[in-house]
Amino acid sequence: MSVLVVGSIALDSVTTPTGQHNEMLGGSATYFSLAASRFSPVNVVGVVGEDFPETYKNLLMKNQIDITGIQISKGKTFRWKGEYSGSMNEARTLDTQLNVFQNFSPVIPRHYRNSKWVFLGNIHPELQLRVIEQIENAKLFALDTMNFWIDGYLQMLRKTLKHVQLLIINENEIRMLSGEINITRAVTSVQKMGPSTVIVKRGEYGSLMYHDKSWFYVPGYPESLVVDPTGAGDSFAGGFMGSLARSGKVTTGTLKKAMIYGSVMASFNITSFGPWKLAEITGSEVEQRFKLFRALVALRV
Amino acid sequence: MSVLVVGSIALDSVTTPTGQHNEMLGGSATYFSLAASRFSPVNVVGVVGEDFPETYKNLLMKNQIDITGIQISKGKTFRWKGEYSGSMNEARTLDTQLNVFQNFSPVIPRHYRNSKWVFLGNIHPELQLRVIEQIENAKLFALDTMNFWIDGYLQMLRKTLKHVQLLIINENEIRMLSGEINITRAVTSVQKMGPSTVIVKRGEYGSLMYHDKSWFYVPGYPESLVVDPTGAGDSFAGGFMGSLARSGKVTTGTLKKAMIYGSVMASFNITSFGPWKLAEITGSEVEQRFKLFRALVALRV
Repeated sequence: MSVLVVGSIALDSVTTPTGQHNEMLGGSATYFSLAASRFSPVNVVGVVGEDFPETYKNLLMKNQIDITGIQISKGKTFRWKGEYSGSMNEARTLDTQLNVFQNFSPVIPRHYRNSKWVFLGNIHPELQLRVIEQIENAKLFALDTMNFWIDGYLQMLRKTLKHVQLLIINENEIRMLSGEINITRAVTSVQKMGPSTVIVKRGEYGSLMYHDKSWFYVPGYPESLVVDPTGAGDSFAGGFMGSLARSGKVTTGTLKKAMIYGSVMASFNITSFGPWKLAEITGSEVEQRFKLFRALVALRV
Repeated sequence: MSVLVVGSIALDSVTTPTGQHNEMLGGSATYFSLAASRFSPVNVVGVVGEDFPETYKNLLMKNQIDITGIQISKGKTFRWKGEYSGSMNEARTLDTQLNVFQNFSPVIPRHYRNSKWVFLGNIHPELQLRVIEQIENAKLFALDTMNFWIDGYLQMLRKTLKHVQLLIINENEIRMLSGEINITRAVTSVQKMGPSTVIVKRGEYGSLMYHDKSWFYVPGYPESLVVDPTGAGDSFAGGFMGSLARSGKVTTGTLKKAMIYGSVMASFNITSFGPWKLAEITGSEVEQRFKLFRALVALRV
């Protein structure tokens, strides 16, 4: 079954301690799509400018990603410039040029509308709600957000969250959204806003899911030599949603496996610049890494 | 089999967002001993002043902790005053009065000398080496250290590490000791200094062990409502060493279980001020929490 994703598509210029690359394919919808496409077909909704390179479009299309939903607007593609240093846990934004992304309003193509697995990437909560309204029979709406929206558009975000079953959010941001420092309390508070399942992303430390009154933890993969952490969270979300769509159902078991597949995709993604690694890895590499994730917590190997 | 610990014994005054307590029983050897004593008898070596309360001595003695090795020196007991705020990951030290601890030189009582399981708490690496020289047939020397010794006494610390099989260290401190940001590289570099097994403590995120070419991960326990994080690392080390001593041998299996028991003890300790919780919990509470730690990472419950 297809996954639908709405989010940003960008040209990223990134500096890390290991190097510097300009105008790479970037954006939350891009990383998400390439990660999800290892498991399921993907329908992507976003906007680019007239300068968006053909080679980038081709890369998406070659990976069972339907790009009918990418609008091409007059003007330039969204550009982001950032830098990582030290343990690379957080990017320092050097420059943001929203360009065509500034006036983005998601339009869902007719043949996307009965998508069952919908991921609302980190965009304005009002646009996220507009997507929800255009979808007919979703099995699961998952949503990502960030401090900017929590800070400035909380009422709108809470309105949108009422329609969402799964929230995927950074640790700092769930603290901000809930006003609670303790993670258990933060999750309980967020559940009252709508999502019954909550995934807290903790960067290199892994991620934590609360579902059906119990926790599930997937650590970060300690062997990854981090080259460029850009898109780690979106690769996680893509692997998660792609794997869930492939399984076809939401159970505690499929959610737990999806957490591991998400972590697998993120662990590959961060070992090189840009999202290309996501398109290169084979199914057997994914399965092998899945087993390594299990071995990390196994009492007996 | 007994565990031997050498470390600080202090009177702690601690402020956290939930309250303030003065002159509580504190110090690395204290938290370690009370946690280890749930699993094995403990021999403790340290120093206190003439003002050290009898009730604190009695608490240790009532918990199968042999305090023959605690010297009583003229003067006052080591005092530490600290404050935690926000997510309480790090203490802000408000005041340190070393008092009798300043001239501490560990003397190992004769009946401690054939201890098999030896934990060298976070003290001057030269004193740690002096302890090693007094022990006759240890099965395992484990060592903790901190930025202060890494910064100021690196050559001495490296000399001591040559005799140590297990290093238990904070994430920031292993980065400092190794000069490597990546955890895999940091551990590989530290193994060349002596310890074949390395445990990296990550505060609320849990801990990570590298042993026999593979990783083992234990997450933090998300349900703990943190009241006072003081002694979390020492409770972890105590639960770890106590459980290892109880098992009587060092294998991948006993080390992994010890990691979980260490995490169990830390998860209890942080839910109240001071180390008293460690003395109160029952064996069945420990086993129940052990199972909850396993459930955190289990695909099927």
